[in-house]
Amino acid sequence: MKKGIAEVPGIACGTGFGGIKRTEKKVDRPDTLVVVTDEPSNFAAVFTTNDIQAAPVKFSKSLKGKINGIVANSGNANACTGEQGLKDAEEMARIVSKLTGKEKPFLVASTGVIGEPLPMDRVKKGIEEAVKNLGKAKGEEPARAIMTTDTFPKTAFREGNGFVIGGIAKGAGMIDPSMATMLSFVATDAKVSSEMLQRALKEAVDVSFNAITVDGDMSTNDCVFILSTGKSEKIIDDSNYEEFKEVLTAVLKELAYQIVKDGEGATKVARIVVKGAKTTKQARAIARKIALSPLVKTAIFGCDPNWGRIIAAAGAASTGIEEEKVELYIGNYLLFKGKRTDFIEEEVFKYLKENDEIVIKLYLNLGNHSFEYLTCDLTYDYVKINAEYRT
Amino acid sequence: MKKGIAEVPGIACGTGFGGIKRTEKKVDRPDTLVVVTDEPSNFAAVFTTNDIQAAPVKFSKSLKGKINGIVANSGNANACTGEQGLKDAEEMARIVSKLTGKEKPFLVASTGVIGEPLPMDRVKKGIEEAVKNLGKAKGEEPARAIMTTDTFPKTAFREGNGFVIGGIAKGAGMIDPSMATMLSFVATDAKVSSEMLQRALKEAVDVSFNAITVDGDMSTNDCVFILSTGKSEKIIDDSNYEEFKEVLTAVLKELAYQIVKDGEGATKVARIVVKGAKTTKQARAIARKIALSPLVKTAIFGCDPNWGRIIAAAGAASTGIEEEKVELYIGNYLLFKGKRTDFIEEEVFKYLKENDEIVIKLYLNLGNHSFEYLTCDLTYDYVKINAEYRT
Repeated sequence: MKKGIAEVPGIACGTGFGGIKRTEKKVDRPDTLVVVTDEPSNFAAVFTTNDIQAAPVKFSKSLKGKINGIVANSGNANACTGEQGLKDAEEMARIVSKLTGKEKPFLVASTGVIGEPLPMDRVKKGIEEAVKNLGKAKGEEPARAIMTTDTFPKTAFREGNGFVIGGIAKGAGMIDPSMATMLSFVATDAKVSSEMLQRALKEAVDVSFNAITVDGDMSTNDCVFILSTGKSEKIIDDSNYEEFKEVLTAVLKELAYQIVKDGEGATKVARIVVKGAKTTKQARAIARKIALSPLVKTAIFGCDPNWGRIIAAAGAASTGIEEEKVELYIGNYLLFKGKRTDFIEEEVFKYLKENDEIVIKLYLNLGNHSFEYLTCDLTYDYVKINAEYRT
Repeated sequence: MKKGIAEVPGIACGTGFGGIKRTEKKVDRPDTLVVVTDEPSNFAAVFTTNDIQAAPVKFSKSLKGKINGIVANSGNANACTGEQGLKDAEEMARIVSKLTGKEKPFLVASTGVIGEPLPMDRVKKGIEEAVKNLGKAKGEEPARAIMTTDTFPKTAFREGNGFVIGGIAKGAGMIDPSMATMLSFVATDAKVSSEMLQRALKEAVDVSFNAITVDGDMSTNDCVFILSTGKSEKIIDDSNYEEFKEVLTAVLKELAYQIVKDGEGATKVARIVVKGAKTTKQARAIARKIALSPLVKTAIFGCDPNWGRIIAAAGAASTGIEEEKVELYIGNYLLFKGKRTDFIEEEVFKYLKENDEIVIKLYLNLGNHSFEYLTCDLTYDYVKINAEYRT
């Protein structure tokens, strides 16, 4: 069984089905998730930077101090729902507090269709069922409850020195830095102060969830939560902060990878590695520009070793790269070194054709900073999924 | 007949076929264009801001003073071609100078595949033919010589008070502000100083070619040239600058519109109008974010009145919009006013379905600045064209 957030000591998960997404198609998976901590827990959160923020984001942002868990639903994002939306988000928290009898508040998250009021009778039914099932949802089950257009549940779990970190995530489209229609809930059994949790989360998100793109869109609902149950008695302080952050980063990177792999319509994951930049900022800007380029993304889909589009996208970041110093690799093939090399197109085509994960490496030869970005190809199915989402 | 650059007094155009794009498919259009001015002319130019600049861009940027015309080819971009590329661009200018016997230099532009050396024997053949045909290429013919994935030639022509402005353009993909794989050549018979031409061109490009997007990609070859033949004896100075700029803007907007209409795979043009912004910068940033969003673009293709994606894209610009003040129209239908209105989906679907040009209007109600952007839908054919460009 794949481990996730439910395998972190001090955490109990339950899922329920309220029928929140009104659809004629029968859904075989839950739409409500409740995560409860044994004891009041420290937490940290990172939210979307979209000006338009969904009601659960506004509500969760207002929480301070300790919490007792998370309540989440899929099928309806409770976004652009005005005053009523905010009341509904508060109501979700109130219902779960009452049913679990826990003293501290709950974080709230929603994902799904924008602009429709939450069907609160169904949400309530879902939460009731989830609380009844507390402790039963293990492995991938909690992740299944927050799926929307996802085709598989996303989990990750790592052990550190005396502690563990486990998490789940959802997201397949509307994925872009500063996050997207993405939720991720992570927990650790280490004892970590809220301040340190926040710092570690921010730094880890920066190189994981904020270094992926599916379609360059950013949603109104994105959030990443981390809870510290403290069950392991392992204390994280300045002496072992780096190790903790490293394990957390590994967990988030694993989840981020799964999101790109599940990118709407995607057939391939592309790892865009920029090296030899003057600054990390430059490396990131170039990696991002390449990762977002529809011309690069369609070329990957077509297994076309179109180095010209990659170089043009890198230059479009307007960061001051120098053509004659640039080297470009696809896999281990050197395609460009100041100018086109005499690589054999057929060989690179074969590499692109035969691999689900491909690596594009750009050496700028201007300095020693680097950044890595994950993206996916742009396919007919991306258009299909999104042109027909509601029709 | 549609008028373009050839109808400006003092301009003679010729086209030729050199077979520059090596392809087995028979091409029924020219691939070389020569534009000659009777007398040495003032000119202005705006170039791509891509770090990687094609050889003809580097060459044309170096020209000062007066010029005698333009030489351009399609089928090969002469980009990422190193030292040899620069020599080839210079050689193109030299050939046309020699053949026409004109004293002032020629601007050079190329468009097509990146990274392959120019086949100079074929380029020479094309130029020779074009010079032989000088004066014969009228109306849409000059524009046909610079087409690549374009499906129709692009021309525009306007009369001002005592002068005319005519132009041609090419571009269908890799179109994004700060321009793209886009060429535009414009001429006027008014007498305008180089400084004034430059100022007018920059300002007009800003609200035309720099306010459109097809795919968010920027090429290495983009340039817009304007020549002043002075044949009309009409002098443009501070007293009539605004009128001149207005006519020029109209010409460039007409050309920009045609580029979006011809967007790779596009079935619809969408006019994104943002009003009531605190600043023009804010209005532009939001309009651009909406225009670039693949989720919005696929929704337009699907005729889906998905206001949630538009609002989310507007918010993603992170410029400080306030949800409760926002009003969103598609056509004349008010879909959102602080929250979803009770619009009838079927009606808006019908509007989207039945119109080739659709209007999306967002009122921020924060100030009195506005900006308008043109974009197109994202379709199966966009993916098809770009995934199979070289295979």
